[in-house]
This record gives sequence, structure tokens and C-alpha cells, in this order.
Amino acid sequence: MAGMNDFPITVRFPIHWGEMDAYGHVNNARYFTWFEAARIAYFSQVGLVEPGMQLPQGGVGPILASTQADYLRPVVFPAEVVVGARVSRIGNSSIAMEYAVDDAASGVRYARGSGVVVTVRYPEYQKVPVPAELREKIEKLEGRTF
Amino acid sequence: MAGMNDFPITVRFPIHWGEMDAYGHVNNARYFTWFEAARIAYFSQVGLVEPGMQLPQGGVGPILASTQADYLRPVVFPAEVVVGARVSRIGNSSIAMEYAVDDAASGVRYARGSGVVVTVRYPEYQKVPVPAELREKIEKLEGRTF
Amino acid sequence: MAGMNDFPITVRFPIHWGEMDAYGHVNNARYFTWFEAARIAYFSQVGLVEPGMQLPQGGVGPILASTQADYLRPVVFPAEVVVGARVSRIGNSSIAMEYAVDDAASGVRYARGSGVVVTVRYPEYQKVPVPAELREKIEKLEGRTF
Amino acid sequence: MAGMNDFPITVRFPIHWGEMDAYGHVNNARYFTWFEAARIAYFSQVGLVEPGMQLPQGGVGPILASTQADYLRPVVFPAEVVVGARVSRIGNSSIAMEYAVDDAASGVRYARGSGVVVTVRYPEYQKVPVPAELREKIEKLEGRTF
Repeated sequence: MAGMNDFPITVRFPIHWGEMDAYGHVNNARYFTWFEAARIAYFSQVGLVEPGMQLPQGGVGPILASTQADYLRPVVFPAEVVVGARVSRIGNSSIAMEYAVDDAASGVRYARGSGVVVTVRYPEYQKVPVPAELREKIEKLEGRTF
Repeated sequence: MAGMNDFPITVRFPIHWGEMDAYGHVNNARYFTWFEAARIAYFSQVGLVEPGMQLPQGGVGPILASTQADYLRPVVFPAEVVVGARVSRIGNSSIAMEYAVDDAASGVRYARGSGVVVTVRYPEYQKVPVPAELREKIEKLEGRTF
Repeated sequence: MAGMNDFPITVRFPIHWGEMDAYGHVNNARYFTWFEAARIAYFSQVGLVEPGMQLPQGGVGPILASTQADYLRPVVFPAEVVVGARVSRIGNSSIAMEYAVDDAASGVRYARGSGVVVTVRYPEYQKVPVPAELREKIEKLEGRTF
Repeated sequence: MAGMNDFPITVRFPIHWGEMDAYGHVNNARYFTWFEAARIAYFSQVGLVEPGMQLPQGGVGPILASTQADYLRPVVFPAEVVVGARVSRIGNSSIAMEYAVDDAASGVRYARGSGVVVTVRYPEYQKVPVPAELREKIEKLEGRTF
């Protein structure tokens, strides 16, 4: 998928018919579940989340502070999509991410998105610095320093 | 997938992290979206639905009259599942279906389900007989008569 | 709500536009989220769940073993619904429930449902007997013995 | 609700237990369904959508071009929320909106959001100017000109 070259992590799946709303295309809220799928795959890869675990390891985990989507073309069932995630910036206690949703067959871009994740201590939601080890793993995965 | 031998139609997909609820396993309502995915794939195959169309072709389409699920084992992210659908009975204006959800890797059965679909004329929801051509296509797909 | 006289617990809420699917009525899977809303309200009332808690108190909590819905009339946005829950049977380690979904304004019944909940020890999902205190609270709420 | 004084349209509803994810708070994607609930209420009020209709009246309807959310505090079940919507700008063929999600009991703000809706001709998704009558109704509802 040429359009996904800039995304070190991608997930791919067929959409479900039930994701369409009364206007006959995929409902806007579903894209955020897809972004989340790519984000969790990314965070699993760099050890920030342990996928099957309910509570973050060692008490430090991610929380989504903000997120955003640009809808470029409606997604109509049936379709298989590929969703990419990359880190665009690392702050003191925040990680900015970008997403893209492409049609897996045609490569057409359906949507772009972004979001900011903050590292917090659970269950108090206290902001903590991005762990050095996590930063290193992200930089290695992205092939650059932040 | 040995367990899916009895299901002429299957769909396969990774589950999304966001399908889990606060108990840390996939929420019970999500299985019905998965059953629907297999049901729509089945109905597309036999020409009862035109997947991308919002309104049923020629005004006749399916409506779900009842549905049911047995939860055998919790589904925990990450997992890829395969969902099968088969027709178990055809009535005058109804079609009974059965579903199964297996783990795509291990073959472990997560859930079983069933449902009854009624053929109706849209948009009035008037019950109509199961079209003869549809019955034939289902019998051909299932390899038996009803 | 006359139709809800037989249900000791009810919840009431407006449906969201986004709960409709491409056929222009509420998607079948959503009803199970509504049943769950009534079930959780019921279980909160009798002390089986602590609503804001992620893990069941004392390790014993409910898990849904099976569930079922009969769809009587399509629900079309806008609508406000009332959903009732009652216990119909208590087994050694299981609780059978029944649900109903009515239009809050007209009283028209949209759907009926049922389900079986098993009491288990978390996180091992080991079946445990329905606690005597829970049985008593349910009997008091239902006004009869099981 | 003091915090909702600046929002001409509000919707109010209890959250469902099933809207929480494995982290024990409401999943980020659900807020967009809530924003949509307020947006549809707004568009119904000014005649842009006919709530029960699947296809936009006269072929002109809204499509969401982009949307965004800032998560201020986690929402934990049980809670009742009030969601407000207002128009912040009207372009040639676009309408910018802002949203807020408050706790209905305490007035605590859980989230803020925004989005841009484009007026298009269905089913071709061709951009059309915001109808003059629609602009007038919005200006009347907002008590100012754009």
C-alpha cells in the first residue's frame, strides 16, 4: 500500500455492514474506533499497552486528550480498509499521532486523523513524563528522533 | 477451519480493542454485529441484498424478527475471529439461520447464535413469501432442500 | 407506563440518530445495549454490581451466558424508549431475566428480550452459587420467591 | 444548566454502561455519537434534516467534513449528560459547529468539540451553497448574523 509507506504501523480489516448509518455510509464515529485500533497496535508494539490487560502495566498508561478526523470520501459497505498510525511529535508528557484510512484494494484515501495522547498514572489520571524507554522505542520505530 | 465446515459462508476479521467493555472482554452486543456481518455476506451471495444499496432491490428485503446468542468463552483483545452463517430452515416467509464465532487461530468456539429473518416489502414492512429463486439459491448453497 | 407494571426496574432515554443503520431503523445490536442498561440498573439495585467499578466487588460478579430478542416493530429516530427488566427465575448459579422495550410516549411495545446471567468469580470466570443475600434482595424487589 | 447558556440546542440523556471500554470510562468514539445527537437536534430545528427520513429532503443535506474533540475529564457510568450544539460560522457551503458535554447533575464539563458540515446534493455528494432560508433560520436561532 503505497499510501501507507509513511506509517510504521498499519491494521487491516473489512468493515461491517452495521457500521453504516441511515445515510448509507459508515458513520463518522466509527473512524475513531479504527484510529484507536491502529493506535493500540502502535502502543502494543512499543510496550505502552499490554493488549489483553485491563489496567496499564506499572500504573502508567495512555489517555486520549484530543482527537480529530477529516472525512475525504464516504466509506460504503463492502470495503476492506487499512488504517495507519504514526507519531508526529513527543512532548514532555504527550505523544501526538497521525492516522490515515485507505481503501485496501484501490488505495483511495478515505480519511485522515490525528490525536494527542497523554501519559498518566492510573487510576488517578495524574500526568507523568513520557518514559525514556518508550521514547527510544518510538524513535526506533519511526526511524528519527523527536 | 474445521469447525466451520458446516457453514457455507464465513467472514473473518480481527476484533477491535474498542469492542471490549469495562469488564475487559468483548461486549455482548458486538456479537450481533458480527452475526450480521456473516448474515449480510450470506444474503449478498444469494442475491437477497445488494450490499452497497440502502433500499432493498425491487422492494423486497430481509428484516430480522428475532435473534439469540450463547456466549461460551469471553473474547479478549487481541484476537482474530471467523464467523459462520448457515440457513437451518425456510418457512413461508421466514428464513432461520445459525451462526458460530470461532477463534481464527486456535479454532476455539467463542459463541453460537441463531436468528429468524422475515422477507418483507419495503418501506411498508409487509410480509411477503420467500421468493422461489431465493429459495433455490439457498438450497444450492446449502447443498440440500428445505 | 402501563406496559411496564410488571417490571420492577426501568430505564428511560431518547435514542440517538446514530443508532439507526442503512435500513433507516435502529440496528438490531443496539437493543442488547439497551437490555444491558436495564440489567445493570437492576443489578445495581440489588447490589450485584457497583456501577462505577470495573472489577466486581469481592470478586463475584455477573457474566452473560445467553441472550435473545424479539423485534416487534422497527424503532425510528426520533423516539424516547423505556426499557424494563425483571428476574423470571433463579437457579443454583444462574439468574434468568426478561426485558421489554416500549415507546415512552405511546406505550407501543418495540421489542421483548430475555437472557441468562451466571454468577462467577472474577477474573477466573469460575461459576459460583447465587449468594443468599442477592437472592433475598431480588425476591424482595420482585415481590415473590423463586 | 449555566454552562449551556451559549448553546441554543441541547440534548440530555443518561449514558449506557456499555459505552465504557476496558479502561473503565466512556470510550472516546462515543462522544462523536453524542455530538451527532446534538447536531441532528439542531438541524431538525432549522429544517436541514427531517429526522425520520433516510434521504435528505429535496436532495440537499448535510455531510460531516471534519470533527474534533477535547477530552477534559473521563466520563464514568452512571452519569447523565447534557450535550450542547451551536453554529460558530457559516461559509459559502459549510457550517462550523461547536459542542460541549456537561454532567447534567454537577455541571462539570467533560468535553468540548467542533466540526464542519458541508451542504451537499445527495446521492452525488455535490457541494451546494448553504440555502438562504437555512442561513436565516440559523441566524434567528443563534440571535446573530454570520
